[in-house]
Amino acid sequence: KRARDYGLINGILPTGQWNAITDVNGVKIGHTTVLKGDSIRTGVTVIMPHTGNIFQEKVPAAVFVGNGFGKSIGTTQIVELGNIETPIALTNTLNAPIVANAIIDYTLQQKGNEEVRSVNAVVGETNDGYLNDIRGRHVTATDVRKAIDSAASGPVAEGCIGAGTGTICMGFKGGIGTSSRKLGPQQGAYTVGVLVQTNFGGILTINGAPIGRELNNYYMQKTKRHEADGSCMIIIATDAPLSARNLERLARRSFLAFGKVGSFSSNGSGDYSIAFSTHPQLRIPFSKKDKSVREIPDLENDDMSPLFLAVVEATEEAIYNSLFMATDTKGYHGNTVKAMPVEKVVELLKKYGALNQDKLP
Amino acid sequence: KRARDYGLINGILPTGQWNAITDVNGVKIGHTTVLKGDSIRTGVTVIMPHTGNIFQEKVPAAVFVGNGFGKSIGTTQIVELGNIETPIALTNTLNAPIVANAIIDYTLQQKGNEEVRSVNAVVGETNDGYLNDIRGRHVTATDVRKAIDSAASGPVAEGCIGAGTGTICMGFKGGIGTSSRKLGPQQGAYTVGVLVQTNFGGILTINGAPIGRELNNYYMQKTKRHEADGSCMIIIATDAPLSARNLERLARRSFLAFGKVGSFSSNGSGDYSIAFSTHPQLRIPFSKKDKSVREIPDLENDDMSPLFLAVVEATEEAIYNSLFMATDTKGYHGNTVKAMPVEKVVELLKKYGALNQDKLP
Amino acid sequence: KRARDYGLINGILPTGQWNAITDVNGVKIGHTTVLKGDSIRTGVTVIMPHTGNIFQEKVPAAVFVGNGFGKSIGTTQIVELGNIETPIALTNTLNAPIVANAIIDYTLQQKGNEEVRSVNAVVGETNDGYLNDIRGRHVTATDVRKAIDSAASGPVAEGCIGAGTGTICMGFKGGIGTSSRKLGPQQGAYTVGVLVQTNFGGILTINGAPIGRELNNYYMQKTKRHEADGSCMIIIATDAPLSARNLERLARRSFLAFGKVGSFSSNGSGDYSIAFSTHPQLRIPFSKKDKSVREIPDLENDDMSPLFLAVVEATEEAIYNSLFMATDTKGYHGNTVKAMPVEKVVELLKKYGALNQDKLP
Amino acid sequence: KRARDYGLINGILPTGQWNAITDVNGVKIGHTTVLKGDSIRTGVTVIMPHTGNIFQEKVPAAVFVGNGFGKSIGTTQIVELGNIETPIALTNTLNAPIVANAIIDYTLQQKGNEEVRSVNAVVGETNDGYLNDIRGRHVTATDVRKAIDSAASGPVAEGCIGAGTGTICMGFKGGIGTSSRKLGPQQGAYTVGVLVQTNFGGILTINGAPIGRELNNYYMQKTKRHEADGSCMIIIATDAPLSARNLERLARRSFLAFGKVGSFSSNGSGDYSIAFSTHPQLRIPFSKKDKSVREIPDLENDDMSPLFLAVVEATEEAIYNSLFMATDTKGYHGNTVKAMPVEKVVELLKKYGALNQDKLP
Repeated sequence: KRARDYGLINGILPTGQWNAITDVNGVKIGHTTVLKGDSIRTGVTVIMPHTGNIFQEKVPAAVFVGNGFGKSIGTTQIVELGNIETPIALTNTLNAPIVANAIIDYTLQQKGNEEVRSVNAVVGETNDGYLNDIRGRHVTATDVRKAIDSAASGPVAEGCIGAGTGTICMGFKGGIGTSSRKLGPQQGAYTVGVLVQTNFGGILTINGAPIGRELNNYYMQKTKRHEADGSCMIIIATDAPLSARNLERLARRSFLAFGKVGSFSSNGSGDYSIAFSTHPQLRIPFSKKDKSVREIPDLENDDMSPLFLAVVEATEEAIYNSLFMATDTKGYHGNTVKAMPVEKVVELLKKYGALNQDKLP
Repeated sequence: KRARDYGLINGILPTGQWNAITDVNGVKIGHTTVLKGDSIRTGVTVIMPHTGNIFQEKVPAAVFVGNGFGKSIGTTQIVELGNIETPIALTNTLNAPIVANAIIDYTLQQKGNEEVRSVNAVVGETNDGYLNDIRGRHVTATDVRKAIDSAASGPVAEGCIGAGTGTICMGFKGGIGTSSRKLGPQQGAYTVGVLVQTNFGGILTINGAPIGRELNNYYMQKTKRHEADGSCMIIIATDAPLSARNLERLARRSFLAFGKVGSFSSNGSGDYSIAFSTHPQLRIPFSKKDKSVREIPDLENDDMSPLFLAVVEATEEAIYNSLFMATDTKGYHGNTVKAMPVEKVVELLKKYGALNQDKLP
Repeated sequence: KRARDYGLINGILPTGQWNAITDVNGVKIGHTTVLKGDSIRTGVTVIMPHTGNIFQEKVPAAVFVGNGFGKSIGTTQIVELGNIETPIALTNTLNAPIVANAIIDYTLQQKGNEEVRSVNAVVGETNDGYLNDIRGRHVTATDVRKAIDSAASGPVAEGCIGAGTGTICMGFKGGIGTSSRKLGPQQGAYTVGVLVQTNFGGILTINGAPIGRELNNYYMQKTKRHEADGSCMIIIATDAPLSARNLERLARRSFLAFGKVGSFSSNGSGDYSIAFSTHPQLRIPFSKKDKSVREIPDLENDDMSPLFLAVVEATEEAIYNSLFMATDTKGYHGNTVKAMPVEKVVELLKKYGALNQDKLP
Repeated sequence: KRARDYGLINGILPTGQWNAITDVNGVKIGHTTVLKGDSIRTGVTVIMPHTGNIFQEKVPAAVFVGNGFGKSIGTTQIVELGNIETPIALTNTLNAPIVANAIIDYTLQQKGNEEVRSVNAVVGETNDGYLNDIRGRHVTATDVRKAIDSAASGPVAEGCIGAGTGTICMGFKGGIGTSSRKLGPQQGAYTVGVLVQTNFGGILTINGAPIGRELNNYYMQKTKRHEADGSCMIIIATDAPLSARNLERLARRSFLAFGKVGSFSSNGSGDYSIAFSTHPQLRIPFSKKDKSVREIPDLENDDMSPLFLAVVEATEEAIYNSLFMATDTKGYHGNTVKAMPVEKVVELLKKYGALNQDKLP
């Protein structure tokens, strides 16, 4: 069950239909989970920004680097040109180049891309080397293609799946999580959807409750080693008509959700946020240009604040979902990571008044 | 009384002696509060990085811009050269240039600076225009000089004082707040001190408790206008031997404390963090250079994590202190801002288990 | 006479009518030259982005910092919000805050701005402390207002005027220079105009000819001191419909003109480029918003290249104009700086085939 | 023959022994040229920062992105941590991920790296798709390994070799070029070495002479298509003891050499500069740390200027060498690119007085 199913309702904004990044129209998610033998616990997750040929119809996009100790691929071109031209893939650290190459494969093979000779593959990663034989780089081009081909809208699988198969979050099993927020008509009725790959440490708080400390599992806890390093990838989609500049501002705010959940973005945690807009009029054509100046819609700076709130809330909840949905995992070298003890956590949330806050004014 | 006096103890690290930025050796704070007639509610606060001639012995420094909708002065040179060469002053938005000019005055007048012809004055600001006749720019060069001359180490006055005289935080009266954290000997025994000028909105949470919602005072609350815009200035001092690069990383983490207290860094909130190191061997000499290569101590990246935790905790507590120490203020146009109702808040903190968390493991 | 009057024609693109930043429709330039007694040789130059109320109708804008050893004011807000809301003023280093305050004065006083309580004054500066009593900060609010009130379109005065009164460029008297380029109809017929305040050193080359070395006046020349430090401000206007992101890319290219003229952006040279678009549909309204989403024209990335060429050529020529138009100046402490010996330079340009290159294919 | 062999001596500083990046002690260069059949014209070039285990002894490093329309891998971690932990590899655009994976292979296999589970492979690229079947991604892991194993100090092969096999520069065959500058004892006797992979267009000037226009081969030339897009990778090594911050400043200056040679960094030209210091005391240990604070040498900001001049001169000459050393190349689809007609160019250089400028004062 997801966080919200336990009455854990963070923030004041309503979610979209699926409470998932797929609430942003056209966004599709695909996972390939790579489980082999005792030691291979990894995978790949792809985010498809729209249902067409992404290279031919690029989407406006931006990156915020919360902590650059990471191996994300494709960031400088996103920053410079303000767009993304491929699916976004998440995987493990050492697999990032192989997955990027597979994203290039996919793009070159798309109908209409026969003459394409430059592709900016976008890949994010976190390090699953405690549970996974990461040096083996077990995610293959086939795995990536399978994730793309199976990508779907609607509900999104969470927890130990795809790129979240082997990750660790706040001392518990982490993974993939997602959530969304929907603004009211006066704020433009925009949707913000977030998907995270959680793999970091800190001092877990859930909707304000000091869970990490209650469960004796936190950074600097004296009797037990808790690894704060790791990383977090945050992918943000919105249908609001945002410039690359305002998408970067949106991405920057997602970093605030880290504070909420008790992360301090440790030295070894490579934390990246990538945001894109799916607004159909903002697509950037590659081949079929008919003019050099496009007329595009652009949301004013002054109207960004509700979106900023939305991205903080959705990122926070996506992280919670990654924890609630993950399961005990044993892998590389016999290493085992337990899922967060949900029942106990729910009790603690009750104790700290962190449940059912939708009843608050 | 300060937050901690009510048993509000956020985080796991101990504070320094004064629980103030002045716990970092040599740092001094001075305030001039400018209260005149019905409409003038403003002031200036200065942070002295050390007790000597700052221009002649610059300190390594860095800036992180959480949200650049602000008028801070001096940032590009800090970024380029990695140092600060003047006191740092905080004031109101429209007064920033006058205060910068006063900082230049001070620097030119310092003994030993007779030939100085270039000064990078560092000034931060937030907008106190609801309570203060901000268009009048009532902070004078004399006020700045008084703040510098009265700067002292030891306990720091908080709340409605200096640059915090007319600010608003989370729908209540904001102001100046400060806090510190001290690492254990295994983490280097470094101190991190933070001083904030709070002037922003959001959905206030205090140590996880949903205070803003309980008190019906938050962004998007339906029946009452709550202004999310404003700004926050965060000044960070440490005695750890950090490069400008690692100081920037430290400053970036302070942004996470915003998430903790319920800010989403609204469009109109110009949020800046400025960090400097007081380590004596890191001083950058101006006139008295004897060599072009200095031997300097440099803390490894890998040892930054405890400092990152420290800056998040201290920034969070500094914000709380600014709220706990502020008092009801009436000013410009008869506008009135109430202080946070502390007794009620303490009750709510109790209800949500947010007090005395030092008893947690 | 200007560079072009001697047959010095750099690059391949034609100029606008005035070969000045004022070729960009609506842009006006005003200077106040402050000459007093033996020691005061300074001034202020203002760039008016359009003829209306700039605060009420902001222009899209961007900043590139070539070298941040400078005291420019207003940069972080330009970067964050992607716009400029005041005239841009250039002056001497220590006068920057006083001039910024005068820009605030002007903005607060503009009709329609009666309720404005936040102003991001934009000021650039270079250090004229060799010829000017810079510590005295002799540029006053009245001087700034005079520059604004006298701002005009059409031809622009160059050399030792306004903010260029006391500057030094490449070992000779520098000052204000301007130039423009006009693209052909196939490239959109856009105009790019540049105005520079030159105050830096290096190894001067003019259209490729090694003038600095021929004249024995260059950085590291063994028998004569040549100061490489200083600074350069570059203001760029265009009528092309550019996003803030593409304006930043345009600004970044202006840095390349430094290479062409023989600068290496020495440690002490604070080099800033500020670019804005005057396209009427890109104005950002302050008070009179009727909707939160504007439909705006946006030039494609792919069509930026001709503008990039234009900005490099215009910046290069603006620097040459600042040198050709400057005159011998004696000032502070009896210090004297000679103008570039134009006749000799023209001879050398001939010798190196650097004149009349418009005859080349 | 290299540029200097024809009397083309740009700038005022002397070169190192080899006039190559290998003049920086310990730096080694290796190439694998991949020529197969009619259509494969590509390769890989590796830069080894020192002769030991680079992962175990990282070097301080920085990146400047002149134009981010490129697919360089590894940049965000360099920026965040201020170091490089692998060889730097250059290749073609679509091969970047495969080459990055090969760099990971190499690193994992190095003795002492048996437990390494995170590697930030650094790869730069330019697009050789006109002469090379770039979609085929013909550079293999074996090719990368061969380049590493054959890496050597001393003279460096230039022109159509390694990553320069299929590139185009200024309308002529481009490729690999290198150069160096050595400062005098008063400036610290430091060496700056540069290696470039040239693949961009513009309006070629060589030491000031308008070669592109004289040869009727330049951007916007009316009768002949000249492609301005492409990219340039610039790798900079120095033995000066520079912080990551000052290495970034050094890298930024290399961009100025683009101006000198007539590039305007067109929209499609992904231009990246990567700089590192080989100073032995600046190595950052991975496993064998004995303390968290290192005492390191650090060159003052004020002493950077000679290095800035050096990097501009060396980058300019490296670009010239890439042109002088390249040869006619026929490849993909029968496309042919001629080398720059050196004899004619030398005549033109004479005509414009661009040769033997070492005789100038």
